[in-house]
Amino acid sequence: MATSTTTDRVLNFSAGPGILPEEVLRQVQEDIWNIDGTGMGIMEHSHRAATYDRIIAEAIEDCKKVGTIGDDYEVLFMSGGASAQNHLIPANLLPEGGTADYANTGTWAKKTHAECKVYGTAHLAFDGKATNYKFVPSQADLDFSASPAYFHYTSNNTIMGTQYHYVPEPPLGVPLVCDACSDIFSRPLDVTKYGLIYAGAQKNLGPAGTTVVIIRKDLLERTPRELPTMLRYKVYAESESRPNTPPVFPIYVVGLVFKWILSQGGLGPIAERNAAKAKIIYDAIDATEFYRGHAREDSRSLMNISFTTPSPALDKAFLAEALEAGMDNLKGHRSIGGIRASIYNAFPAEGCETFAQFMREFERRHG
Amino acid sequence: MATSTTTDRVLNFSAGPGILPEEVLRQVQEDIWNIDGTGMGIMEHSHRAATYDRIIAEAIEDCKKVGTIGDDYEVLFMSGGASAQNHLIPANLLPEGGTADYANTGTWAKKTHAECKVYGTAHLAFDGKATNYKFVPSQADLDFSASPAYFHYTSNNTIMGTQYHYVPEPPLGVPLVCDACSDIFSRPLDVTKYGLIYAGAQKNLGPAGTTVVIIRKDLLERTPRELPTMLRYKVYAESESRPNTPPVFPIYVVGLVFKWILSQGGLGPIAERNAAKAKIIYDAIDATEFYRGHAREDSRSLMNISFTTPSPALDKAFLAEALEAGMDNLKGHRSIGGIRASIYNAFPAEGCETFAQFMREFERRHG
Repeated sequence: MATSTTTDRVLNFSAGPGILPEEVLRQVQEDIWNIDGTGMGIMEHSHRAATYDRIIAEAIEDCKKVGTIGDDYEVLFMSGGASAQNHLIPANLLPEGGTADYANTGTWAKKTHAECKVYGTAHLAFDGKATNYKFVPSQADLDFSASPAYFHYTSNNTIMGTQYHYVPEPPLGVPLVCDACSDIFSRPLDVTKYGLIYAGAQKNLGPAGTTVVIIRKDLLERTPRELPTMLRYKVYAESESRPNTPPVFPIYVVGLVFKWILSQGGLGPIAERNAAKAKIIYDAIDATEFYRGHAREDSRSLMNISFTTPSPALDKAFLAEALEAGMDNLKGHRSIGGIRASIYNAFPAEGCETFAQFMREFERRHG
Repeated sequence: MATSTTTDRVLNFSAGPGILPEEVLRQVQEDIWNIDGTGMGIMEHSHRAATYDRIIAEAIEDCKKVGTIGDDYEVLFMSGGASAQNHLIPANLLPEGGTADYANTGTWAKKTHAECKVYGTAHLAFDGKATNYKFVPSQADLDFSASPAYFHYTSNNTIMGTQYHYVPEPPLGVPLVCDACSDIFSRPLDVTKYGLIYAGAQKNLGPAGTTVVIIRKDLLERTPRELPTMLRYKVYAESESRPNTPPVFPIYVVGLVFKWILSQGGLGPIAERNAAKAKIIYDAIDATEFYRGHAREDSRSLMNISFTTPSPALDKAFLAEALEAGMDNLKGHRSIGGIRASIYNAFPAEGCETFAQFMREFERRHG
């Protein structure tokens, strides 16, 4: 097997599945063949044997350590992506005839809201559609229903490049539910404010194939309707997320990423680095009138930076020249076009510098 | 990174997740870092970009090639394991107030049957409990209900070590549904006899984290009830199984395993090899009265061989000495105890010889 070096890898701005820490990739390469000297690879271990016992126990423990998560919460590893949570949340938390509140801040928030209707009434506490999703609501913008079963919001919107920079407050006693797919563990969070937080792994936590769900224990007792076994949160909570064969490999990689976050000093240093990384690119956008960011300044995402050049033709040239220069996956989502630079936890600061430099040179050539 | 050799790997008899072909593991090690010279690893590619476009198209095509599957079937890659199929099948195929037929041949068959009850009536066309699941039913043993929506059976039972060596025939026009988790693509199959075949990848197809579903297209049109988007087969069929971010890595590995099966000559040669492999071990069991197989001879599984020595104490000694000799994961399922040797497609024939030799020596020492 070739022992390739860093130089054969491009700068990967993918919005997800996204870039992973190279230290993690190196470890995975070893463990695919023979993990912990067991004589078999990570994919070939029974999920009931000692190696996986260790992996799942450490993944739960390290997740709690990273997120400062208390014992009144359970950490679950599920499958089906965040899209499965769209139906699992109302299925498990919304009583028959009840209402749940949602904030529509873009494509994913809208999809989540739509899925609720199978089980009950979905009320929009905020709808950003008319203002083209350029910003997330302030607390004052939120118009809750009389007695919602929960309030759901999307903390970071990958397509629009917007992000909440505060934690919205639902009415007293109403559980706060957060789709944190694209910014979980990118900054410190106060878990005690939440009833449930979920995130598909494939942006800040690992590869696609598992979804981390952090749920307050009392919510596990809600049983608003009869559900198949595999659709109940409690079944996962009671079995270290292995009521059946779990997605062993994705969970194992997420475990390695938790250890990587801890090795970086945890969420404080990670957040500082992320803010500095985003500033490098936003500064390049703001320096002149050439580039235009999509998000309103107070809602700018530190994870996904969506912007345009003066024309679609120049956007296209930008993408082609960037690729030529070793920078890939910069195309904006088809719904808004332009450029999107996703710079998750594992994306290196030097990569942001390289990109900002490229932006300035591109402007010089085409401005 | 160390370039380890075969000698650092044990003989892995795991019932699942199970052993994978070493050629596949080597390829994965490369691709984790940089796949197809794209400058990024397989886990870091967007599921909407060219590399994954190729992977999913080839996985579907190769699956059809391996299984000789016609265009009247769809190949889906889902998540949630076979346990998710336990509820997805009745949810998608069983009309309100309808009845579905099941054959109870052990733990997994029983669980599947139980889950049906959320959506309708489950009728047992056969129940092997009273005879301790030592055999699978013959066609004559099957007692169908008046007008079942489908008939579900489990083609191989990992715990009991039993396997159907014929394809059971449901009443005319009734779709045959098969849980083929532990013997899919271990021998040729006539897909035209089936309405739906499913298999969690982690035995003969790849790592845990995706489930292959082969479904006849007309069944996609059954919509017995309102279901969340992600619980409908049709949604996967219409999107190359990526209505949302799919479990990219597990699907990629399954694709490699399909190519490996083709490189072995396809299911004909694979089946011959599997029969020869199993014979080596069954011959060692049958040679004397020392070992006792669990399954009745006509129902013996070629994938999982469950047997006992003359006493639980000797079983324990057997497992300890086998481990010492580099043979792991031989412990029988707790529900029946004893020894279980799982010898899926990727398990080498020489490993069966080594094991049979060990069995004879153990008998000599302890018999």
